[in-house]
Formats: sequence, structure tokens, C-alpha cells
Amino acid sequence: MQFAMTQRLLLLLFCVSVVATTAAAADPLPSWNDGPTKEAIVGFVEKVTKNGSPDFVPESQRIATFDNDGTLWAEQPVYFQLFYAIDQVKKKASDHPEWKTEEPFASVLKGDMKGVIDSGKEGLMKILAATHANMTAEEFRSNVSEWLKTARHPKTNRPFNEMIYQPQLELLEYLRANGFKTFIVSGGGVDFMRVFAEETYGIPPDQVVGTSLKAKYEVRDGKPVIIKLPEINLVDDKEGKPVGIHQYIGQRPIFVAGNSDGDYQMLEWATAGKGPRFGIILHHTDGKREWAYDRDSHIGQLNKGLDDAGKKGWTVIDMQKDWKVVFPVDKP
Amino acid sequence: MQFAMTQRLLLLLFCVSVVATTAAAADPLPSWNDGPTKEAIVGFVEKVTKNGSPDFVPESQRIATFDNDGTLWAEQPVYFQLFYAIDQVKKKASDHPEWKTEEPFASVLKGDMKGVIDSGKEGLMKILAATHANMTAEEFRSNVSEWLKTARHPKTNRPFNEMIYQPQLELLEYLRANGFKTFIVSGGGVDFMRVFAEETYGIPPDQVVGTSLKAKYEVRDGKPVIIKLPEINLVDDKEGKPVGIHQYIGQRPIFVAGNSDGDYQMLEWATAGKGPRFGIILHHTDGKREWAYDRDSHIGQLNKGLDDAGKKGWTVIDMQKDWKVVFPVDKP
Repeated sequence: MQFAMTQRLLLLLFCVSVVATTAAAADPLPSWNDGPTKEAIVGFVEKVTKNGSPDFVPESQRIATFDNDGTLWAEQPVYFQLFYAIDQVKKKASDHPEWKTEEPFASVLKGDMKGVIDSGKEGLMKILAATHANMTAEEFRSNVSEWLKTARHPKTNRPFNEMIYQPQLELLEYLRANGFKTFIVSGGGVDFMRVFAEETYGIPPDQVVGTSLKAKYEVRDGKPVIIKLPEINLVDDKEGKPVGIHQYIGQRPIFVAGNSDGDYQMLEWATAGKGPRFGIILHHTDGKREWAYDRDSHIGQLNKGLDDAGKKGWTVIDMQKDWKVVFPVDKP
Repeated sequence: MQFAMTQRLLLLLFCVSVVATTAAAADPLPSWNDGPTKEAIVGFVEKVTKNGSPDFVPESQRIATFDNDGTLWAEQPVYFQLFYAIDQVKKKASDHPEWKTEEPFASVLKGDMKGVIDSGKEGLMKILAATHANMTAEEFRSNVSEWLKTARHPKTNRPFNEMIYQPQLELLEYLRANGFKTFIVSGGGVDFMRVFAEETYGIPPDQVVGTSLKAKYEVRDGKPVIIKLPEINLVDDKEGKPVGIHQYIGQRPIFVAGNSDGDYQMLEWATAGKGPRFGIILHHTDGKREWAYDRDSHIGQLNKGLDDAGKKGWTVIDMQKDWKVVFPVDKP
């Protein structure tokens, strides 16, 4: 009884401190400049969460999906997962002397990125098979985890999981504080992203949807394991994004954020649903603090999305104008 | 300012009432008889949630997966989803005069269940294609929702979503109250279960993993839709369960519940992980209140699981002995 009383008292004290914290909470999006973009986001969140509002959306339907590459973290000069694959090829090269002359591995080992890209889809599948498959899910996770600790971005020399966007971290947190469930829906590899998504974005593994390989279960030397197979299960890009959301999340999001034409169908499907919807396109306009690219980019091409954003009612974020800071390291 | 003060006061009052409720909370599993099974469950939950305990598991890893058919709701005389399929065939029969002579539809229309089962996998795929595919995800959802309102179980004459197990509802709730994230991992159709899982079990659509069909995205008459295709994407049964968990949840559960050999691999994989693990097999021993079946059943066969439960350390629930009530309607 004494113990129960103490527990109750502790819980009460905790609640009082929560109340105090709530009262002190200031601008939830401090890294966003004031202006129409920030107002549109806050206006949407306020109207769907206001009890009795005609636009009120129950918590169970407050689903928000974010692309990852170019939306939550940077994607230049190439997708970070490609750096991972290249580093793994180099690491494994001593066990594969034949790679010195076999494409696309020869190009990878010579650091000839053009040669890698020229190897096309077939070459990429070979790299994928050599670096992402034919191993247990746990081996893969541990490889990615090790790599993240030591690998550095070629331009900034910072860890890849610091090349994330501070304003988006605040947006994710703001949405969750307002009863949204936040998901990643990315063309990137699901098992790759799951290694860091929880620590980096506060998004748990089961709320990450991405491109995936087929897998099989087996008991190997008495130990049950999942083996990643060198065969594509889902390409979570373009038309694959609404399909991925349907299969993994099972409801249409009301809030979506992307940055390239790979996100077009996700934006189109989500914002065509009934009731209030919010679509964001992050436009990379900041060549100084990040990168400036859109219609002609080899990575994250944004063409149709820019053309149609206006008529579709999507909000285009101008990185240069709308963001006070870009990366967490730039925070004042 | 006035408003902020009022808000703080309301929050404080709310907290006080939460504290009061917590203090009043009694047995979290009132429909479970006292005894070793209930003690084992409560003991496990207490040790993994106790801060500083050597068996403590952080909330982010408290993943619990439950089979559905025979574990959360009944599965006799046949899987309830088969009743749905049969009712849909009957409903659509007037548009398909050819079904009068074409198997397996002819058997379905004559109510010859043996004929349906004899049509084998090929026959089942035809029924699946006719009743679960070639329609939008929204049409399917609305069909299932309508059916659930009017369909009745042949033996009890009760709605199918009342043929659920009261003790399991309490267990799900108890786990969630202790920071577990609860998932369904079932051989049943994922889109079928998602229609009722949230209302029935408190499990949202994105926490339901099941057998699924492939799907495609298209813009039909200007309206973006997901079309369900007559082609299997994942068979979430036996070896497919660990694979489904890997693909959809992305971590190994620490608490698993099943009732048939279709759950064997899920139990095996989950309980072989490091740290504390808990595996449950629900043994249908209650021919009076529910059904009694195991080794020779045509549905929910439990053979290998019964043989190995002891050496694997899985807890076998004896429905007759361990459950005070079976269905919510039986609650005192």
C-alpha cells in the first residue's frame, strides 16, 4: 500500500512537470522561416486536430508519409546507399579477384562512377546482389551499422546520418505531437533505412516502407535465420509508392512529403483522397548550403511535380527561402 | 494567457484522474483463471518492463505478434474468410451464369463444402480471384464491411467479429498498457483483417501482417486507385510468417502467440532470439464452450507444436482450464 501511494505521488509529480513543459513550449518549427509555407503547414495541422472542426481527422487516420532521399536527408552527389554498396564491394574485393576485370565491379574498384552508372540496371542488380543479399538479415544490419559509424560524406566529411534536414526533424516531431503516425516511404532499401531511422528520425522499423528484396526463412546449423535473396520484392518508387503504402500501411495518408518525380504518384494518390490533405514537395534551391537541382538532375529529378504542384494544390518548399537552417550542425 | 492557464489546469485535472484510475486498476486479465499460465504471462511482462531488471527490454523492442484465426477469433467449422468468399460468390452468381457448371463455383453454389475443398489450391485461387481481386482496394474494404454487418456464424448465429476471445482481448490490452506494440501476423488476408482489426482488437491497419495479393496503382477516369490483382504476393503462413515479420515489422518479436503448426516457424524464430522471449500456443481443448481439436483437424492442425512446446519452452494455453470465459458475450 505504501508502495502504491508512492507510485501515485510520483506519477502526479511527473504530470505536473509535463504540464509545466507544455506551457513553456514555443514555436514547434524554429528552423522554418515565417511565411506562407510554414503557415500552410501549421494551419493544416491545427484544422485537422481541432475537435469539432469540419476538417477534424481522428488520430487513427492521421497518417503522414515522408520520402527519405532528398526529403529527410541529402541525396547528392549520389544516393548514400550507393556509397554503402561501393564501400562493401571494396571491402569484399580481396575475396573476389575476378572483380578486377568484371563489370560493374571493375568500375567500382577504379572509382569510375560513370562506368558504374553505365552498367545500367543489370550492373546495379549485380552490385545489389553482392552487397545486400545472400546473407542473413542480422549480418546485413550489423554491416550497415558498422559502416554508418565510420563512413563520411565526400563533400562535407560528416557522417551520413548527420546529413539530415533539421526543419524536417522538427516537422516529424510536430506531427507526432499532434497525433500523427509518421512513416518513411522511400525508394531506398527498407533494411538499410531501418538501421538508423529510429535513432535518426524517431521512426521505428515497422514504420519504414522501402524497396525490398525477397527473403526466406531457414534453420541454419540449428539457428533460425532470415536470408536476404538477390531478387527484388518491391520497388518502392513512382507507382510502387502507393502500392507500398497500400501493402504496408493499409490506409491512404493525409500528409505526404517528397522531393522528386519518384514521389509524384504518392502525392497524387494521397492528396486525391476525401477530406483535408496536405502534399509537400521539397525543392532543392540552395546551392550554397546544400545543392540546387531539379529538372535536369541525374538524382532526384523534379520535373512533372514542379509543373503540376500548383494545380494539384501541393505546397512547394523553397529550401533557400523557407529554411532557416538546413542541417542540425548549422543550428544556432 | 488566460487560455493557456485553463489548458494547463485541464491537463492537470486529467492527470489526477489518470492517477486515480491507475490506482484503482485491478487484475488486468480477469477472464484468465489463476494458475501457472497466467502467472507465466504476468511474470514475463513484469520482468521485461522492470527498469534495472537484467531482463529489461526497452519499449522499442517490445514487439508482440498474434496469429488471428484460432488465436484471436474462432476458426471453426472453416476459416471465416471462406464464409465471406462463399457469400460473395453467391452474391455475384447472377452475373455469372457459367458458374452453375464451373468448379469450384458449382460446389459453392450447391453448398457442397467438400467439393470446394476437393477443388484444391487451384480451386481456392479461382474463388480468391473472383471475390478478392480485380477490384479497387476501397471496393473490397466496403464489401467486407457490409458483409460483417449482416453475416452470422452458422453455429452460434452471432456476428463473426463477436466470435473473438475475451481473454486475448485482455492480453492485448495488458501488453499495450505495458509498452508493447501489438501486431497481427496471420495466414488470413491482410486487407480482409484490416477492415475490423482496429475496432475489434485495437490493432491499426499498419500493424496487421497477412497473406496478400499483388496490387497496382492506376489513374482510372481521373481518379487514382489501387487495384487488387489475382496474384499472390505473400503467403503469410508457416515459413512465410517469419518472412512477413521481417518484411513488414523489421524486428524479431519478443512475445508471440499462435495456435496451429502454421505458427510453428514464427514461434521458433521469435523465441530463438537473444534475451527474454515468450511463446504461446493456444490449445483448443474446450468442445463445450468452443471447439476441441488439434492433431487431426482439417483446420488449425496442431501437431508438431504440441510435440515440441515443452522442449522449446512455449507455454501451452489449455482453453478449458485456463479461460474463465471464452467469448465477450459470456462475460459475467
